[in-house]
Amino acid sequence: MTESARAFVPGHITGFFSTHPDDDPTKAGSRGAGITLADGVTVHVEPGEEILLNGDHTEVEAVDRVLAALRLDAHVRVTTELPVAAGFGVSGAMALGTAIAANDAFDRGLSENELTTIAHGADVQAGTGLGDVVAQARGGLPIRLEPGAPPHGTLDGIPADGQLEYLVFSEMSTEAVLAGNTDTITTAGDRALSSLVADPTVETFMEASRRFAREADLLTSDLRDTIRDVTQEPGEASMAMLGETVFAIGTALSDAGYDARRCDFCHTGSYLLPPTTDTQ
Amino acid sequence: MTESARAFVPGHITGFFSTHPDDDPTKAGSRGAGITLADGVTVHVEPGEEILLNGDHTEVEAVDRVLAALRLDAHVRVTTELPVAAGFGVSGAMALGTAIAANDAFDRGLSENELTTIAHGADVQAGTGLGDVVAQARGGLPIRLEPGAPPHGTLDGIPADGQLEYLVFSEMSTEAVLAGNTDTITTAGDRALSSLVADPTVETFMEASRRFAREADLLTSDLRDTIRDVTQEPGEASMAMLGETVFAIGTALSDAGYDARRCDFCHTGSYLLPPTTDTQ
Repeated sequence: MTESARAFVPGHITGFFSTHPDDDPTKAGSRGAGITLADGVTVHVEPGEEILLNGDHTEVEAVDRVLAALRLDAHVRVTTELPVAAGFGVSGAMALGTAIAANDAFDRGLSENELTTIAHGADVQAGTGLGDVVAQARGGLPIRLEPGAPPHGTLDGIPADGQLEYLVFSEMSTEAVLAGNTDTITTAGDRALSSLVADPTVETFMEASRRFAREADLLTSDLRDTIRDVTQEPGEASMAMLGETVFAIGTALSDAGYDARRCDFCHTGSYLLPPTTDTQ
Repeated sequence: MTESARAFVPGHITGFFSTHPDDDPTKAGSRGAGITLADGVTVHVEPGEEILLNGDHTEVEAVDRVLAALRLDAHVRVTTELPVAAGFGVSGAMALGTAIAANDAFDRGLSENELTTIAHGADVQAGTGLGDVVAQARGGLPIRLEPGAPPHGTLDGIPADGQLEYLVFSEMSTEAVLAGNTDTITTAGDRALSSLVADPTVETFMEASRRFAREADLLTSDLRDTIRDVTQEPGEASMAMLGETVFAIGTALSDAGYDARRCDFCHTGSYLLPPTTDTQ
């Protein structure tokens, strides 16, 4: 037993999605597409019992479920620059990072797919995410062709390099949206996925995402106004699913006069970090 | 059309494998496992007709086949610190890097899986590799559960962080070994994969790889002596498939008194690099 271990998980913005419920949480999930971010979550696991997010005590059901699946109590310290409940997949990242770090710290001997499956199931059962975990395990600009964790879910990716900017207006509850009627979302999401599969480029992803946000009726007036300002610049912007958050390609939010945070697309999926003596 | 583009592809050392021929090159391939390396290949593609490897004109059938599949003539400049024909998957890396960069430079609009499939098929048809490309597309420490490119092949991974050392004695022809009787290899490779799937850790990977190298009867006397020296230290070492190359975990080759090159495990799969004005 190495006593402690750390993992990095990229943030993930979903541009569009469709929901696919299933009694088996490893088969349930979403189709859709998104962008993983070099801004991410670092999870440190060691013996103990508390979950800390940027130093503050917190309760995260998806993390509790991962620890239960691994038959562990653990001290989980999460640090991130990403905003919570704003469409960056932080709950999924915490679940996956906990699984990867705990597997190493407590010698559980599980494979990457097994850890992804545990974290995906935990995020789905907690109601906090349907597709972030599998996307965060892969990295890049993941296209979720089939819902669920390995071996059920299948992924592809948009081959692209670049950076994006994001601007958060306020929080939005993924649980509340997913608990409502998702028929409109799923119809719009299926249409968006078809167009992206036919032309897997960043331009088509952004166009499909904007149309999805409109058709699924998820835009607030702040989001609508900001996206309009950026597209008139002209630039590419849409809404992060699910948060009251605008994301834009390159420097398009700054170019339109907004004070936005910039970060690179993430080339890596999630991974174990080298050991550290940091005791934060 | 952006005129030129660059891609990075990690090196890949296979520890053990079994061969699975198929008339369809996208279904043919290998099962097995390996480690991707932060040392890799950078491929620059622009209009033209020549293939250069570290500045020298070269002929690489797998690259020609990728360009033919994309219906392109192109100038392909490859730079790498990896030795060629020594078990690092350089032919697969050149094929995959060419596919990713050419797709971007010439606006072919293909997805990551499609590019991986083209490069895998090209490497298989050229006889230069059976599993490097799918491993290099994923990164980390890939386990090839089922042979072939997406959607046929399936992968898992060993969740691990670390570094390795390698030492090359001489070149070895992948084509020649694969053209011979591979029954012994496949029997030994299937046994190695079963043990790794049961315990997906670096320790079990190295143990399975050493046993495979012995059972498949691929060791030269230089390889056998060096691996014995490292394991007596004690350290973990085995043979890179297929090269007259020893690889070892951490600093085990240096610890045993050898002058070896060190590099990190690679956290990323293959990816498009930012544009550059470099004209090398």
